[in-house]
Amino acid sequence: MEEDFETQSSSQQLEAINEALSSGMYVHVRKMLHHMPAADVAFLLESSPSKTRAVLWQLIDPDFHGDVLEELSEDVRNGIIRQMMPEKLAGALEDMDTDDLAELLRGLPDTIFQEVLKSMDEQDRQRAEQALSFGEDTAGFIMNTDTITLRPEVTIDVILRYLRLKGDLPKDTDAFYVVNRHDKLIGIVPLTRLLTATSDMTIEELMNEEPETIPADMPEGEVAKLFERYNWVSAPVVDEDNHLLGRITIDDVVDIIREEAEHSMMSMVGLDDEEDTFAPVLKSTQRRSIWLGVNLVTALMAAMVSDLFEATLSQLAVLAILNTIVPSMGGVAGNQTLTLVIRGMALGHVGTSNARWLINKELAIGALNGVIWAVLIAGVIALWKQDLVLGGIIAFAMMCNMFAAGLAGATLPLIMKKMNIDPALAGSVILTTITDVVGIFAFLGTATLLLM
Amino acid sequence: MEEDFETQSSSQQLEAINEALSSGMYVHVRKMLHHMPAADVAFLLESSPSKTRAVLWQLIDPDFHGDVLEELSEDVRNGIIRQMMPEKLAGALEDMDTDDLAELLRGLPDTIFQEVLKSMDEQDRQRAEQALSFGEDTAGFIMNTDTITLRPEVTIDVILRYLRLKGDLPKDTDAFYVVNRHDKLIGIVPLTRLLTATSDMTIEELMNEEPETIPADMPEGEVAKLFERYNWVSAPVVDEDNHLLGRITIDDVVDIIREEAEHSMMSMVGLDDEEDTFAPVLKSTQRRSIWLGVNLVTALMAAMVSDLFEATLSQLAVLAILNTIVPSMGGVAGNQTLTLVIRGMALGHVGTSNARWLINKELAIGALNGVIWAVLIAGVIALWKQDLVLGGIIAFAMMCNMFAAGLAGATLPLIMKKMNIDPALAGSVILTTITDVVGIFAFLGTATLLLM
Repeated sequence: MEEDFETQSSSQQLEAINEALSSGMYVHVRKMLHHMPAADVAFLLESSPSKTRAVLWQLIDPDFHGDVLEELSEDVRNGIIRQMMPEKLAGALEDMDTDDLAELLRGLPDTIFQEVLKSMDEQDRQRAEQALSFGEDTAGFIMNTDTITLRPEVTIDVILRYLRLKGDLPKDTDAFYVVNRHDKLIGIVPLTRLLTATSDMTIEELMNEEPETIPADMPEGEVAKLFERYNWVSAPVVDEDNHLLGRITIDDVVDIIREEAEHSMMSMVGLDDEEDTFAPVLKSTQRRSIWLGVNLVTALMAAMVSDLFEATLSQLAVLAILNTIVPSMGGVAGNQTLTLVIRGMALGHVGTSNARWLINKELAIGALNGVIWAVLIAGVIALWKQDLVLGGIIAFAMMCNMFAAGLAGATLPLIMKKMNIDPALAGSVILTTITDVVGIFAFLGTATLLLM
Repeated sequence: MEEDFETQSSSQQLEAINEALSSGMYVHVRKMLHHMPAADVAFLLESSPSKTRAVLWQLIDPDFHGDVLEELSEDVRNGIIRQMMPEKLAGALEDMDTDDLAELLRGLPDTIFQEVLKSMDEQDRQRAEQALSFGEDTAGFIMNTDTITLRPEVTIDVILRYLRLKGDLPKDTDAFYVVNRHDKLIGIVPLTRLLTATSDMTIEELMNEEPETIPADMPEGEVAKLFERYNWVSAPVVDEDNHLLGRITIDDVVDIIREEAEHSMMSMVGLDDEEDTFAPVLKSTQRRSIWLGVNLVTALMAAMVSDLFEATLSQLAVLAILNTIVPSMGGVAGNQTLTLVIRGMALGHVGTSNARWLINKELAIGALNGVIWAVLIAGVIALWKQDLVLGGIIAFAMMCNMFAAGLAGATLPLIMKKMNIDPALAGSVILTTITDVVGIFAFLGTATLLLM
């Protein structure tokens, strides 16, 4: 039965385990979990409601807890470790990669953090403290310390004998680092070079003498961009004096790339990118309420603009009916521009050298959009309400608002970045406020001037 | 001067080149481009308006064109290759990785495609035709054919001599594949194992006999999930009879992960994930117009719902003023749920086994949100408009709409996926239509019943 289980796809495994859980076959579930790779167990936990998660966690072999913790996303992991006893947690953290260890410790409440640190062995504690001494989300924080270093004068023959003696190499080792007697990085030898070299050559003859390095204080987003652009599998991390500190591997970078890309999408509706799909109701409601609160304020602002034209609205109900069309179109057009500019900024394509060009382009699109949709909506309204003047009024408002949408969509993210505000988080709500206010003002204002 | 240039950051390089271009120093720009890695030149092209791009392309050494094309995103690349002569293009394609070659050819108009294929040498043509024979966005399409295969009976000693003779190994080689005489994959030897083995061992003794393989017809999104979950650097691709066809490397997977994550964000405002930030105005306007057209229809639908209550609106202008608040709040709450569920589905966390739980959770959040924001808005309106009944009406409408938002946000993506519609593309617009209609109907309907 277990062999069958191993060949199943993740979603089939998920269903099989859920079925076994709901019929109370805990021993069976324990067996199934025992046969799954840590990454699959982590996936199962991430796909389960929080109550099921707690049950599953109890059924996982404690020796295996550390491996599973390493694979979990931040939000889910923090939920689990807050319920573990500090000593058990410290046990699970043994042999964990430095970067995962640091990230995990960072998520702990202060009191537990101190207890766990005390329960750890000396070597692990030192590794953790070093990583934590670097700023959060910097290269120093996400690096691992499991590098293999060589001296330049050694021959390939000696190296190969040393490696055979050593046995296993650290995961994702694709290069050895060459350091001088002061631990300064002076070169890199790719594994593939070592294999194709003759045995009497020295490391110095083989090594690449101008290795690409990552400064320990580089933000992780920059690190990810370098890996992505130059297709690296691993890269050495150095301090300001070029001392080798550790290395960053592609598997950690993949996580950063996914997080960064998700961050923009989630932020635009006011969610955290680590948001747990299966968090409890109260926690989720609380997290989402800030964004809804902000939106309530902006919706009230839009209502207040309409309120200025109460006299007009009370005489012409048709204006009330059409009042939402122009703001809605402006919001969509503006959000298109905003999304494109935010992505361009995230990829590094948009900067000071081409910002002016981009703003001009988006203004041109805004103007063109304005003309196109003004003509269309004028036609629709003239036909629907049999009123040419009304069609003209809504067309004029549409043009104003489309232009405003292009301007706001292109400039807002650039301005916000200068002010160190995350454009993905607040850009959309500010933009919608602008297009709402401009749209209502242009429509009801023109109508008041012409029809009253 | 060139040496200074090499140590500058990308954005500084960008500015230096733009300055040199605008002052007409073309020879200088040509020199600068000559000293940049292909990835940096590609980045420069992606960050430039289309006119500048054409000028830059002329200044790049033609021997270098293929390398740069490999690094460009689809939209930008297609713009460039459509303006190249077929023979020149065929020349640039020599030595390109199979996967990039196939992707590039796919982007060509049919007539040029045939011409380019004719101008290619026999070996390249065969590689390209094989890749194109697999479905677009499958493992077979994105794999490379540059694998190194070994036979099980050979000793390490022989292998090492062979590798020394061969010299260079393909990029990102982290494992050798072991095949039997029928070219069937029977094992994998990680490079690191080869280094730590003694020279008289055979490949058979060293190899991992149950290698993880990727079927050639697996969709690229699934491939990316496997790489991400199991932290692979490369993996072999096989056909249904386990014949080795090629391998997929992490650098291509990183591109897929970024594209998939961006796809959801861009789709939610109706943009293509390959959308070029610096595309010409007309092209951009055209691409965005479909989404604006859809939105116009839904905005008109909302207006028509208001139109049903024209008699009420003409008597109570205050309703017109407050009419946008409830739909706006429902839209935000619904989009939060929608975004979370779409991301959960993209990560594979949300499936049939937990869909019901998730819907119940989102309904509970919707109900809770409804109560919270109903109380708040009732208070605000009662104070602002000095009208308790009005406050009660808007509170009731808010509760209905928040519940509808939770229901629609959780169920829409699941229903759409069953119907094979991309939820990221159309989910948001359908959701907003629902929350607009429910919000307006609940608010104006209740007001008509109670106040008229």
